Amino acid sequence: MISMHELEMEVRDYELDIQGIVNNAVYQNYLEHARHKFILILGIDFAELHENGVDPVVVRAEIDYRSSLTSRNRFIVRSRLTAVGKLRFVFDQEIVRIPDNIVCVEAKITATTLVNGRPGVSIAMHQALERFLAGSETKP
Amino acid sequence: MISMHELEMEVRDYELDIQGIVNNAVYQNYLEHARHKFILILGIDFAELHENGVDPVVVRAEIDYRSSLTSRNRFIVRSRLTAVGKLRFVFDQEIVRIPDNIVCVEAKITATTLVNGRPGVSIAMHQALERFLAGSETKP
Amino acid sequence: MISMHELEMEVRDYELDIQGIVNNAVYQNYLEHARHKFILILGIDFAELHENGVDPVVVRAEIDYRSSLTSRNRFIVRSRLTAVGKLRFVFDQEIVRIPDNIVCVEAKITATTLVNGRPGVSIAMHQALERFLAGSETKP
Amino acid sequence: MISMHELEMEVRDYELDIQGIVNNAVYQNYLEHARHKFILILGIDFAELHENGVDPVVVRAEIDYRSSLTSRNRFIVRSRLTAVGKLRFVFDQEIVRIPDNIVCVEAKITATTLVNGRPGVSIAMHQALERFLAGSETKP
Repeated sequence: MISMHELEMEVRDYELDIQGIVNNAVYQNYLEHARHKFILILGIDFAELHENGVDPVVVRAEIDYRSSLTSRNRFIVRSRLTAVGKLRFVFDQEIVRIPDNIVCVEAKITATTLVNGRPGVSIAMHQALERFLAGSETKP
Repeated sequence: MISMHELEMEVRDYELDIQGIVNNAVYQNYLEHARHKFILILGIDFAELHENGVDPVVVRAEIDYRSSLTSRNRFIVRSRLTAVGKLRFVFDQEIVRIPDNIVCVEAKITATTLVNGRPGVSIAMHQALERFLAGSETKP
Repeated sequence: MISMHELEMEVRDYELDIQGIVNNAVYQNYLEHARHKFILILGIDFAELHENGVDPVVVRAEIDYRSSLTSRNRFIVRSRLTAVGKLRFVFDQEIVRIPDNIVCVEAKITATTLVNGRPGVSIAMHQALERFLAGSETKP
Repeated sequence: MISMHELEMEVRDYELDIQGIVNNAVYQNYLEHARHKFILILGIDFAELHENGVDPVVVRAEIDYRSSLTSRNRFIVRSRLTAVGKLRFVFDQEIVRIPDNIVCVEAKITATTLVNGRPGVSIAMHQALERFLAGSETKP
């Protein structure tokens, strides 16, 4: 039972800005990619959902930028699913540089689901998330 | 005396994702561009600062996504400088769709300044921000 | 009758890379945005086409990078529709810096249309392009 | 002796556009990242070069888009250094989807070097490229 998802990635030079560090917005790209890989393991395919009229969307992002990533840095994006309510689910994520384990970014991302463009519940997705959360809570 | 900066922009199709809406990370691009245009009016040039070893960096972003922008939408980014401390300054920003005035994004962005890569104070920049803030507070 | 489309744009700091100049890929974003604005004037809405199963796609891009754009630069993207065949249409585009009229980029973009994911002809789109091309050729 | 560099990558959902396929400009990002990884093996560090006033820049890109990449696709970027002249060097690259080996993109990228912002030769970089090219030609 995984209780946390980890994805190893690497900075690409086109993601650097004039300051020579990864641009703020790019970290959101990293975080999103890691969440999509995470939920895919739970059987939830973002692109497939969209074709079926179901669109998970972020409603709130809280991002703390603690340290910068720069050219050639490798890093791990750690993602935890920490809450699943009727309409919202919450991911706690962090970006940690390799190999020195410096925490570069901490983020709390709250998402909801649109069904045909309006707030709604995707039963299948909801159940997959709840099942996962229950499993990861009971089994340490 | 301006107390708020407004920048009109327009969605570009390459900013849309598979859901047909502007991708979350792109709003950070919009917000950053608006802040840079804003501080430029105060005499602070982001690229020039960097050449002089001074790098303003975001340390925390809180972003509420209320409604989505899509193809062809025009919008205004409103930016207010709401606090200037010794080491941190805070922008309140919102993205409002035209012409229906729907608030799409609200954000609170906290930034600091690195001098030669370490936390530090850029006197010139700090004074420009404080002067502006003082002016906008006393003159409604 | 317009024979050429012009769009004025401005460099945004997040488009710069570590070299302090606009990253190569970003010019393709500029060019695409300008083409979409151009064909919109001819009544062709890219996002609307997609909803109807019609997807214009680029099949070849030839891009000459002559000079770089950097922070705060303003520029014009000039787009000409130069050929419309049964399956392909060609745009000649250039990016010219303001106010010194330095040509930064010259591009020749060849596109085709996918209908429901396969090569096909969108009659409406094709006619709009041909009508335009005929008009712009006969009226100097 | 490597005569060709290969980099395996994966589509990220934020790279898709409204058509559900990887946006044209993003392929340039892939190609650039692969070139930087390639020259790094030859001892050429892009970010380090910049700090020493040496900036490789692309002067011409010819890109043929043969087939699209979409969500979850894995792919290989193959890069060959095919010519090294006094002022220019040429990369032939292709992006091949896994596992069906469909060629999605073929590209010919011509680059030059700016030294302190002006056309110039970086001896160290030039020699590294020439040495590599000589080696890969003589040793099949």
